[in-house]
This record gives sequence, structure tokens and C-alpha cells, in this order.
Amino acid sequence: MSPFTGSAAPTPAWRHLRVDRADGVATVTLARPEKLNALTFGAYADLRDLLAELSREKSVRALVLAGEGRGFCSGGDVDEIIGATLSLDTAGLLDFNRMTGQVVRALRECPFPVIAAVHGVAAGAGAVLALAADFRVADPGARFVFLFTRVGLSGGDMGAAYLLPRVVGLGHATRLLMLGDPVRAPEAERIGLVSEVAEEGRADETAHALAHRLADGPALAHAQTKALLTAELDMPLSAAIELDATTQALLMTGGDYAEFHASFAERRPPQWNRR
Amino acid sequence: MSPFTGSAAPTPAWRHLRVDRADGVATVTLARPEKLNALTFGAYADLRDLLAELSREKSVRALVLAGEGRGFCSGGDVDEIIGATLSLDTAGLLDFNRMTGQVVRALRECPFPVIAAVHGVAAGAGAVLALAADFRVADPGARFVFLFTRVGLSGGDMGAAYLLPRVVGLGHATRLLMLGDPVRAPEAERIGLVSEVAEEGRADETAHALAHRLADGPALAHAQTKALLTAELDMPLSAAIELDATTQALLMTGGDYAEFHASFAERRPPQWNRR
Amino acid sequence: MSPFTGSAAPTPAWRHLRVDRADGVATVTLARPEKLNALTFGAYADLRDLLAELSREKSVRALVLAGEGRGFCSGGDVDEIIGATLSLDTAGLLDFNRMTGQVVRALRECPFPVIAAVHGVAAGAGAVLALAADFRVADPGARFVFLFTRVGLSGGDMGAAYLLPRVVGLGHATRLLMLGDPVRAPEAERIGLVSEVAEEGRADETAHALAHRLADGPALAHAQTKALLTAELDMPLSAAIELDATTQALLMTGGDYAEFHASFAERRPPQWNRR
Repeated sequence: MSPFTGSAAPTPAWRHLRVDRADGVATVTLARPEKLNALTFGAYADLRDLLAELSREKSVRALVLAGEGRGFCSGGDVDEIIGATLSLDTAGLLDFNRMTGQVVRALRECPFPVIAAVHGVAAGAGAVLALAADFRVADPGARFVFLFTRVGLSGGDMGAAYLLPRVVGLGHATRLLMLGDPVRAPEAERIGLVSEVAEEGRADETAHALAHRLADGPALAHAQTKALLTAELDMPLSAAIELDATTQALLMTGGDYAEFHASFAERRPPQWNRR
Repeated sequence: MSPFTGSAAPTPAWRHLRVDRADGVATVTLARPEKLNALTFGAYADLRDLLAELSREKSVRALVLAGEGRGFCSGGDVDEIIGATLSLDTAGLLDFNRMTGQVVRALRECPFPVIAAVHGVAAGAGAVLALAADFRVADPGARFVFLFTRVGLSGGDMGAAYLLPRVVGLGHATRLLMLGDPVRAPEAERIGLVSEVAEEGRADETAHALAHRLADGPALAHAQTKALLTAELDMPLSAAIELDATTQALLMTGGDYAEFHASFAERRPPQWNRR
Repeated sequence: MSPFTGSAAPTPAWRHLRVDRADGVATVTLARPEKLNALTFGAYADLRDLLAELSREKSVRALVLAGEGRGFCSGGDVDEIIGATLSLDTAGLLDFNRMTGQVVRALRECPFPVIAAVHGVAAGAGAVLALAADFRVADPGARFVFLFTRVGLSGGDMGAAYLLPRVVGLGHATRLLMLGDPVRAPEAERIGLVSEVAEEGRADETAHALAHRLADGPALAHAQTKALLTAELDMPLSAAIELDATTQALLMTGGDYAEFHASFAERRPPQWNRR
């Protein structure tokens, strides 16, 4: 646990998600398969809070986000989100939409790589959760559907209008967000939305293999690579180069860099520090 | 017509363009086929002014930009633009180049999706007009030629050095703008420059089908999706997520979102509001 | 030579690089083939200083960056960089990492196009040097390896976390920088990392052909295209359009634009000005 943990106790039980930990890999499973893992107010809130707690757990070195049953996540529940938000007042609507955005910020800002394991459908907010991950490992039959306009809302939900053009370019992003048509795994791979297509039915397994590979590697190097990729989208070149220089100077004083050099001289695999 | 329309009367006739309206779709045609629709001072000025006027017409929900005859647009006319600008003074040159840039800003900022229907050549400023559209529907034989350096000018014309890297990535954009070589439809599709390749000879028809689909959809959702895609290219992630939250909260109070929910419950197609 | 050259004398000999000049093309060769052109403190410093000097030589209109022997560049030398930096103090580490970043800034800011001719491996800092070039011409067997995390460092080295997402998109960039796996020429071409795949064994030759084509073209137009592509990654659309307008107005007063118009009227090839 981080020494920069205060009085707040860890949440003893996550009611809206399943959380497992093994060998440095946390697995967060959307586990409401009878509703295609449709999100609820509670699921969003749990994701926001869980990611903050896991960020302080030094033992977590990679995270897999998965969905139980026939698909990854069908997005906001028609009754429990769309119906429920229709009776919120202005402040409530803003609070709801800020909460969903905080989940995306938490995914981009947590200090370990996040791998979305996508099979079946990733729709609406489910597609944006996958988009906010660092890696998307997809079943060949997976499909992403940014369907916001089809329910009368803006395609720019939870940062999608920021992230998607930076992942697939402005042309594809416009098409996907404006029309809300499904993007199947082969096209998703072709346009850069998918990091790896798994063998049929093995997205979870492939995502876990990647997570364990990452968890076995140099955790601080991975954390800073992610932090710089995230921050430098919002920085001019000169500032990015200065940030790279200070980050690299810092990591050169860390044990992993010296360990690499020693392991190379001794012709053995390096033993990386924990996070 | 928008209530935020002042004393200015609508322009009774556009001398340098053809404008048609049908079922929420405005079609703007570059109609100087004997010159491959080469642009003139008047055509740029008309595009700038027309887009501002159409933005206040509530009945316009999508726009098709097309070219009559053998191609989409060959760019600035050799005599009427290149020749004419050679006799302008410093202030005149700046006014001219600001006007052309205003056309691109108008295309990016108008509150409806713009679909460029490209057949034959889209060269120079013609290529940038297509690039500034939200969708590019291309004939299989279409070609884009960012030929600015071939006339001794900067490839960064009318926002091209801003837009093209964000559509196709910095590597392809450098190659296209620096060399000015033609990019044919198959490559344009592969690198993300084209949204959809139409069947031979049917780019206009396919673009209109897409425009009518968009015009039949939720116009405010489309307008805000476009506005967010445009704005969030220039914003950090945290600000983009806040903009998404406020936009979505606003749209959740609009009629289209409630209409979607009602139509879903009643198992019927939604009836979207006008813009 | 630029009139804006002060008292500093040109460096009489570059000890850590080979520099050739012919017909407006400078060729900078990493020439330590027995070490796969591994970089040293001296090689970085020479690259930084050489690019500044070449930027003042009006006769240089394009630059090829190449590697002698079996590969392009294997990155920082395990002993002379990794080993040596392990004994630097905090200020020394910062100075070293700022120097390497200055090489990338120099590549992005020099007033002529840079073509990396990549055969064999471009690893670590070698991959970033190629990434910072304007064009990457690659042998079919070339491979790019952003291996920083494999030595315990951040993938964001020398601007890589800024540049790579803007060249290949955030998804591919995350995968490449986080995992450090090799990207071979066919994938590099598919994701937009390579500008042109040469015939087997002819990357240098193909890069030189491109360099000579660029050197024979309008140098100021190329320089400003590059400057705008670089600057407009860090600018909002409205500022980019204003920068395009002023740049184009300026170039319209230059000789090359008038020369194009005259050559067109006279049906002869244009004679472009020197830089």
C-alpha cells in the first residue's frame, strides 16, 4: 500500500463489480450478464472509487477490464440510466455526467496499464471504457458501437470526442461518433482501435497473458510511459521533450535501470523492482 | 430561421455557386465544369457567406458539397487566383488568404454535418475543402492532390497542416503536403482520408443518401458531436471531459433523449426534433 | 551561408559522424558499423551541433540520415551510454537527457526536410531519430524497436511519447512504447510509421532519390510546410488558419510563386529559387 494513504479504509466489498487479484494483475469484471453488463449509477461509482483505491495498492501492476457472459458491456442501462436520468434535475444531470467522465480520467490516470478484454458488444459507455484503456484485446467477433447519437445524445460522451480522434484519426472518429454504426474487430484493427485480435473465444485469456507480461516487467517504467503518453497529448513539443528529459533522468536514478545494466553484463534476465 | 437573425437579408442569388435544398439537405455545387470548378475570388467569398447564412436556417440539417462535371474541384484558378494574387499588395494578399481560411473555419463550425462528394480530382484548395468536411464520400477513381508546394507555396494552406495530420497522422500528412503527389481513392481510404468509397460514378448519390440519413436523425445531437470533435482537438483531456459532461447534461434535458426513451418503451422508431 | 551567422566558425571536422554534401543534399551517416552505430555522448552532441550549423548553410535543401553497415542505429551504447549515465549525478543526468531531446528538436526545427534511410534495426534512440525525421524510407527487412521499457526506462524518450501518437495514433503508440516489441517494415507501413518501403537493399538509394527530388524543388515552400506541420500540432485551429494565411501571403510575394505562374504560361518547368 502507498505510504500516501490517509485515514480512508479500503472498501470491503464492491457490490457492482467483481474484483480479483493474482500475481500483480487486478481483474475487474462487469458481472451482470443477464443485462449484457449494462451499467448503472452504482457500477460507474464503483469503477471511479475502485480505480482510486487500486492506484494506491503497490501490488497492482496491471489491470484487466472484462465483461461476464455474452458481451463486454452494452452501455448505460435503458431503464436504470436513461430512464433514471430523465427524472434528474440540472445539478443531478451534471453530477451524473461528471461521474462517468471521472471513470475515464481514472482509467487514463491510474499508474498501471489497463487492458480491456472485449468480446461480443462494447456499446455506448462500454465502448468508451474500452477506448480509455491502454490496450484493447478483442475477440474476432467483437464489435464497438459508439451509439450515443442513436439515443439523441452527443457522440462526445466521457471524453470520446477527445480520445477517439487521437486513436483512429478525425475522419474515422467523426464517422463512428456521428453515425453510431457498429465497428467489427477486423475494421477496428485496421483503423488502430484494437491492439490485438485474440483467437476466437480467448480475449480474456489473451488479455491476461498481456497483463501478466506487463506485471512481470518494470512497473515504474510502464507507469511513466503511460503518464507521458497521456500528458503529452496536451503539451507542445518543447514541453514534452523537457518532460521526457526530467522523467528519464529520474528513472536513471531508479533501481530498474541499474538492474538492467547489471543483468546485461551478467547475461541473465533482469529482476525488476515492484511499483 | 434562427431567432438570432438580425437585419441582414438573405442573399437572393449566389452567383458563384449552385445551391439546392431538399428535405433538410442543402446541396452546394461548384458549377464551373468547363474549368474543372476552379475557384475564384467570388466562389470563396460565396462559400464563406453562404455557410454563415445556412447556419441560421433551421431547416438545414446536413450539407453536401459537390462538383459538377468531370471532377470535384481543381483548386484556385491559375489566372483568376494565381495570376490575380500576383498583383495584390501585402494587405490584399493577407485579406485573400484570410478569406480562404474563413471558408474552412465555416465548414468546421457550421452546426450540421458536411459531406464532400468527390469524383475526379480534388486539388489544392479543392482538396482542403474536402478535408474540412466531416465526411468524404469518394468515387473509386477520385484523387486528392495537395499540390501547394508545386506552385511554390506552403502545404499549410487554409488549415491543411492542422487538419491533415489529425486525419491521417503526421507521417502521411508530411508526405502528402510536402510532395504534392496525387492520393487515389484506395490509398485515401487506407490512410483514413476517405469516409466511404462509393460505387463507380455514384459519389453524389451516395453522399446524398448519407446526408438524408443524417438529416432524418437527431440534429442537435449531430451538431454537438461535430462541435465537440472540432473543439476537443484543441483541448486537454480534463477540459474535454468537463465539456462532454455539460453538453450531455444539456442534451439530456432536450426532447430527443426523452423521445428515444419513449420510443424504446413503445417499440417504435423515434421521431427526432428539428434543429 | 545565412547572413544571420555570427562569429562562430564552422566545425572543421565531425569526429562522431560522417557528413557529405552533394547537389543541395547533405548526408549524415552514423558510421560505427562494428557497434551497429550505437550512439555515444559525442554522437548526440555532434548531431545537435551539426543540425544547427547545417540550418545556416543556404546550400543545404534536404538531409538524409543514414547508418553504415548492417543496420541504421541500435540506440544508446550499452557501455558508453547506459553504463556511463549510471555514474552521472542528478545535474549530469538532466544535461544528458536534455541533449538527446535537443537532437529531436533540431530535426523537427531545421529548415529542410529530413529523410531517414532505415535498413536493419532502428532501436531505442535510433528509432526516435527516425521518428523525428520528416520521411522514413525503409528497407523491407527494417525494424523499429522502441525498447526503452526493456532497459527500465520510460517509453517517452526524446519526444517519442509526443511524436509517436501523432504519427500512428494513441493505440499503436501505447503498444509500441509500453511493450518495446519490434515493428517490422510491413506493419510500420500499414500503421503510417514508414513513408516508403524501398526495394530490398535500396533504402539509402531511394532516400537519396527523394532527397534530390526535394532539393530540386521550391526550398522555401518545403521549409515552411515543415515548419507549419510542426507548429500546428501545438495550435488551435483558429491560430493555425491565421498562421497559414500569413505564411501564404508571405510566400505569394516570393519569387517561386511568380516563377510558377510564368513557367505555366510559358509551358516550361519552373526554375525554383535557392533557399
